[in-house]
Amino acid sequence: MESIDENSNRRVISLGLGDPSAHTCFRTTYVAEKAVLDGLQSQKFNGYAPTTGLSDARRAIAKYLSCDLPYKLSPYDVYITSGCTQAIDVALSIVARPGANILVARPGFPIYDLCAEIRRLEVRHFDLLPKKGWEVDIASVEALADKNTVALVIINPGNPCANVYTYQHLKKIAETAERLNIPLIADEVYGHLAFGSKPFVPMGVFGFTVPVLTLGSISKRWMVPGWSLGWFVTSDPNGMFRSPKIEECLKKYFDIMGGPATFIQAAVPRILEQTDEAFFVNTINVLKQTSEICFNMIKYIPGITCPQKPEGSMAVMVQLDLSLLHEISDDIDFCFKLAKEEAVVVLPVGLRDWIRIIFAVDPSSLEEALRRIKSFCQRHCNQLQDYQ
Amino acid sequence: MESIDENSNRRVISLGLGDPSAHTCFRTTYVAEKAVLDGLQSQKFNGYAPTTGLSDARRAIAKYLSCDLPYKLSPYDVYITSGCTQAIDVALSIVARPGANILVARPGFPIYDLCAEIRRLEVRHFDLLPKKGWEVDIASVEALADKNTVALVIINPGNPCANVYTYQHLKKIAETAERLNIPLIADEVYGHLAFGSKPFVPMGVFGFTVPVLTLGSISKRWMVPGWSLGWFVTSDPNGMFRSPKIEECLKKYFDIMGGPATFIQAAVPRILEQTDEAFFVNTINVLKQTSEICFNMIKYIPGITCPQKPEGSMAVMVQLDLSLLHEISDDIDFCFKLAKEEAVVVLPVGLRDWIRIIFAVDPSSLEEALRRIKSFCQRHCNQLQDYQ
Repeated sequence: MESIDENSNRRVISLGLGDPSAHTCFRTTYVAEKAVLDGLQSQKFNGYAPTTGLSDARRAIAKYLSCDLPYKLSPYDVYITSGCTQAIDVALSIVARPGANILVARPGFPIYDLCAEIRRLEVRHFDLLPKKGWEVDIASVEALADKNTVALVIINPGNPCANVYTYQHLKKIAETAERLNIPLIADEVYGHLAFGSKPFVPMGVFGFTVPVLTLGSISKRWMVPGWSLGWFVTSDPNGMFRSPKIEECLKKYFDIMGGPATFIQAAVPRILEQTDEAFFVNTINVLKQTSEICFNMIKYIPGITCPQKPEGSMAVMVQLDLSLLHEISDDIDFCFKLAKEEAVVVLPVGLRDWIRIIFAVDPSSLEEALRRIKSFCQRHCNQLQDYQ
Repeated sequence: MESIDENSNRRVISLGLGDPSAHTCFRTTYVAEKAVLDGLQSQKFNGYAPTTGLSDARRAIAKYLSCDLPYKLSPYDVYITSGCTQAIDVALSIVARPGANILVARPGFPIYDLCAEIRRLEVRHFDLLPKKGWEVDIASVEALADKNTVALVIINPGNPCANVYTYQHLKKIAETAERLNIPLIADEVYGHLAFGSKPFVPMGVFGFTVPVLTLGSISKRWMVPGWSLGWFVTSDPNGMFRSPKIEECLKKYFDIMGGPATFIQAAVPRILEQTDEAFFVNTINVLKQTSEICFNMIKYIPGITCPQKPEGSMAVMVQLDLSLLHEISDDIDFCFKLAKEEAVVVLPVGLRDWIRIIFAVDPSSLEEALRRIKSFCQRHCNQLQDYQ
């Protein structure tokens, strides 16, 4: 995983990818590893799984998600996917029709745009409001929607904004989707990774108000993105997505798409049911610690600000003050020069003044990376006096 | 894996699915299992792989396939897929354009039709000739092709015909594709599973004549279809598929599609390089034995015939003589009544007089299933005298 910068001879530190599995402090639980090992060693799961997923795994996921819902999901609501990425593609395929558009947050997750392009869906971007905890600008959602709008995508806990939405705000979103008569695509790949004051509330709670297509995976909560085990779930107690046509469409989709390895699917019930609470508590504590390191150190770095304390997920949005940052023309230039001069990788998000920083990194590497970002910003800043 | 028929109280025997992993005689090699176990236990491969695949795995697959080719594949020719099913989808996505059609064999593998439908490709079926070892009817290929034809699909070793094509016949096919100016999609998921007189020759051998998109996986040769580890390979030494446009298209495809688990990818070099020859020899011997059981027992079953001795893969085509089979209206009816009366599952292939039988089943179950098929056919046959 490690690489050395050729110019400075320093270790390259990446705050670019939401994959904490390389760091010891974010190692997965032995329960999960053992469940997969046993699945493999049993030699019972080397064969094909049903294309929509092993039924025991579907049942376990339905049970796991139902714990937080006012109704029970059926195993038939659950389709097993190759990670959450494929779940996004399933959701977009299901809602796609000629001339349709979907509403996606800005800033957001670029796979939605890529996937929509391939599925021939127009993407319309509504704003998240940095000064209001990155809440959805409901008015902008309503202004963008028209009769060809087929879905509203909500990522919560937020990537890349590190926000966690309140029950009240999610309710408002659900009521908006109900008014617009469109389903919600609820990307909850960071589900339960909330370490601020607000608890994680799954969008499926509002399934009676509006049909919710819930996307998730074990990638983030269990720190195993490389296991490619995700789900697409119809959180839809009114059964609006239970038409034979949609079910046939889903079946066809899964018949031609490879799913995750059968023995990993076989491990899902044990992973979901037997993971020790202490593992989750530890993860939350480490994320809280690293997010605070990030937020607090950025306060003392000239030329960049973090408008909102991270409350969930693994990434936070950081605003650049380009009027202070000498010789930096935009976000892309910032990332490029930072990598070159300091061997620290951060990524742009497609917004001119903003970059995304991943804080799910071991604390000492994170501190070192932020110290280098500070040197970089100080060097490029016109006005250093306030910070020294 | 086992189920009991409710009516007869007999064990249901399936000769329907090309997945031999349930049978002890087709168990995978410990080398493969250990390589995956080590990948998992190293805890180095819980994170994301590059979307086109781990570079060590791509390199190993390029090397493995290059052994049988008159040129060297580069790791960049290799894209890792979720089993061969996803490799089919990649190939069809890459060649698809509005109004295009592809040429697919009849009998063939139904995923091509399903996938083409989703990718909006018209499918035109050319015939395979049962009396000529299921060779391609080249004249029918040429008659079907027009200016909108974008690819010719060849499955070798054949599914569901158990044929293995000679070098000479493959050369003719390649020259036909060259004349038509279309690439070949070479489905070699059963690659190396040839147990008759003809050796397996990969279509990529003719890569200088015509670009070949090679599809494969470890599913069949290593008996691990549930590991979902396949590949899409441009066997294209002239670099006709090396345009930036196609490479961008492939990159986008893989960016939104989940691939196989990283730790399984990490095991690929050891699986390909260290599997003992004795494992392959044993597999070939068992397949030869079960295919002969199948072919020889069918000779003595009235109303069905196997026109061609199986030479490869795991499935063989069996012709029904509906004039002899009393009260059987067609292939679907045959399969339905056989399942009901004898608890044996075989599948139709979309051709009225034909069914497909999987012979990659442990010998005693296969013999029992064929005895039941014999009882069934005898019972339904008008003219028993010749066979008793």
